Amino acid sequence: MRGAVLYGPRDVRFEERDVPKIINPTDAVIRISSACVCGSDLWPYRGIQPIAQPTPMGHEYCGIVEEVGSAVQSVKRGQFVIGSFFASDNVCPTCQIGYQSSCQHRELVGGAQAPFLRVPLADGTLVATPDLPSADLIPSLLTLSDVMGTGWFAADAANVKRGSTVAVVGDGAVGLLGILSAKQMGAARIIAMSRHASRQKLAREFGATDIVTERGDAGVARIKELTTGIGADSVLECVGTQESMMQAITSTRPGGHVGYVGVPHGVDLDGERLFFSHVHLHGGPAPVRRYLPDLIKLVWDRKIDPGRVFDLRLPLDQVAEGYRAMDERRAIKTLLSP
Amino acid sequence: MRGAVLYGPRDVRFEERDVPKIINPTDAVIRISSACVCGSDLWPYRGIQPIAQPTPMGHEYCGIVEEVGSAVQSVKRGQFVIGSFFASDNVCPTCQIGYQSSCQHRELVGGAQAPFLRVPLADGTLVATPDLPSADLIPSLLTLSDVMGTGWFAADAANVKRGSTVAVVGDGAVGLLGILSAKQMGAARIIAMSRHASRQKLAREFGATDIVTERGDAGVARIKELTTGIGADSVLECVGTQESMMQAITSTRPGGHVGYVGVPHGVDLDGERLFFSHVHLHGGPAPVRRYLPDLIKLVWDRKIDPGRVFDLRLPLDQVAEGYRAMDERRAIKTLLSP
Repeated sequence: MRGAVLYGPRDVRFEERDVPKIINPTDAVIRISSACVCGSDLWPYRGIQPIAQPTPMGHEYCGIVEEVGSAVQSVKRGQFVIGSFFASDNVCPTCQIGYQSSCQHRELVGGAQAPFLRVPLADGTLVATPDLPSADLIPSLLTLSDVMGTGWFAADAANVKRGSTVAVVGDGAVGLLGILSAKQMGAARIIAMSRHASRQKLAREFGATDIVTERGDAGVARIKELTTGIGADSVLECVGTQESMMQAITSTRPGGHVGYVGVPHGVDLDGERLFFSHVHLHGGPAPVRRYLPDLIKLVWDRKIDPGRVFDLRLPLDQVAEGYRAMDERRAIKTLLSP
Repeated sequence: MRGAVLYGPRDVRFEERDVPKIINPTDAVIRISSACVCGSDLWPYRGIQPIAQPTPMGHEYCGIVEEVGSAVQSVKRGQFVIGSFFASDNVCPTCQIGYQSSCQHRELVGGAQAPFLRVPLADGTLVATPDLPSADLIPSLLTLSDVMGTGWFAADAANVKRGSTVAVVGDGAVGLLGILSAKQMGAARIIAMSRHASRQKLAREFGATDIVTERGDAGVARIKELTTGIGADSVLECVGTQESMMQAITSTRPGGHVGYVGVPHGVDLDGERLFFSHVHLHGGPAPVRRYLPDLIKLVWDRKIDPGRVFDLRLPLDQVAEGYRAMDERRAIKTLLSP
């Protein structure tokens, strides 16, 4: 089979790789229905997060179970399944408490930008849909593997409740789906920070009530103007830089909540400043597995349509262009069809 | 009158000062019933937090209202009152939400190690007891002004609930009262980190079920042993150093809560490490005013006895010895009688 392999900064190749096999008896191999490029793939793509060797790319996936290992019990050949970028056993104390992305036996899943994928800990990781989905649902189901689960976690970690005032830092796919999540959770006001017309448009369609185009101190001042002068109840940090993190913290009211899901790169928090900000801070790699059953139901029942973040659709063999378009912010998110 | 003034590192003097007067119509002046030395007074006492000029010390107070400004309505002359180290108007949006220590008009209260004290924003700041208290209640009521309110906030910020497993970093007065608070909130297990026999004893009396004497990595390992291998649900950070903060974060289970109330000195949090720890972080200057009514009731009804943290009682003119004893850890906390 042929799949995407990153060789170095901006060097993604579509090349021959071995078809994945069952290695451990708890594995499954799935036939990928759709794959995509994640915002976090851009960190190594841009060379900000160096790679040690050529690396098969892609960690968002859904598809049909092709084969299962001898110890797999709940997942069956022929099912349509979705899993998280972190495989988890779903039975350890950390999983039981809902933090499957910190599972004591977690394994990163990789190489999903390809026709087939090996998923470890299949019983704990994969969740099947009620039936085989119609083709138009597949993009939305795919988002549940990471980007939608991560946006949902951002809103959940930021304690979004019915009536909350919410601000979202970052207008990438995660930020946009954070808006959709906040709307779904009943937020009264959702302020999107964005300067891009197409992203502003989707933000509004997903539920944003206000758009702030200012950044830095001016952006924070604008958010305070919109929130009784004190800041938002809940702020979703969906970027992962020092600037975005501080923007999120300073846009939050005392006692409010920052949910941060952008993988921090070079972020350093001054303890005293954080202390006097009086915010709640929670985040990390999204425990996607916790949310999968509920989010599958919302997509299945056509209550949410997170697949709308895909504004570029390419055949898998054009994966390199998919990366380029996202890197240059020409595309919000690229859907890849094997 | 004579009161405590800090001139520089380890130089506290008891000297003549002007009797405080009403300056603003919203002020009150109270006659101090008991004063004390706070753990946070040790930062400037030790020279770690430099002072620009000779500084009247003391920010924990309770006493009898001597005089009120013309705009004061709810506080009356002759009442016994307690207030926070941050005066607050208790009506701004931040106060209304329960974060009075971030009040939009907050003012630091200072100079309470003296016979009289001016308290700004008296209506918003001071809470009267149901009647004049008997003498034996005064030490416990005094603690509500800061140290007990701060311990309570640490437990609240760390989300302590009925049945929680709790660890407490720091065996000073705040840490010990954090234990009392966690017990009061129904924690099932409370692990105190302490190496001092007298503090261990009080920790047990306040509700600690386990004592961990190890520090650093060994301390964290011991806490994990005691908590299904994953860490405590709630960890109270009651020190404010880099080491104590990291000990708190790494002792918390994924998805667990760190409540931090030690004023951070030189604390710097690595964003990526915090991200993958998966903890909730909340803290800051305790919104003591929020808790005063409930805590006064608990003390008044003799349900809690936080005044037991005072293990050294001195007349006010021996305030310098009160600081020395705490600095050298000979005393947990010094009570001063004017």
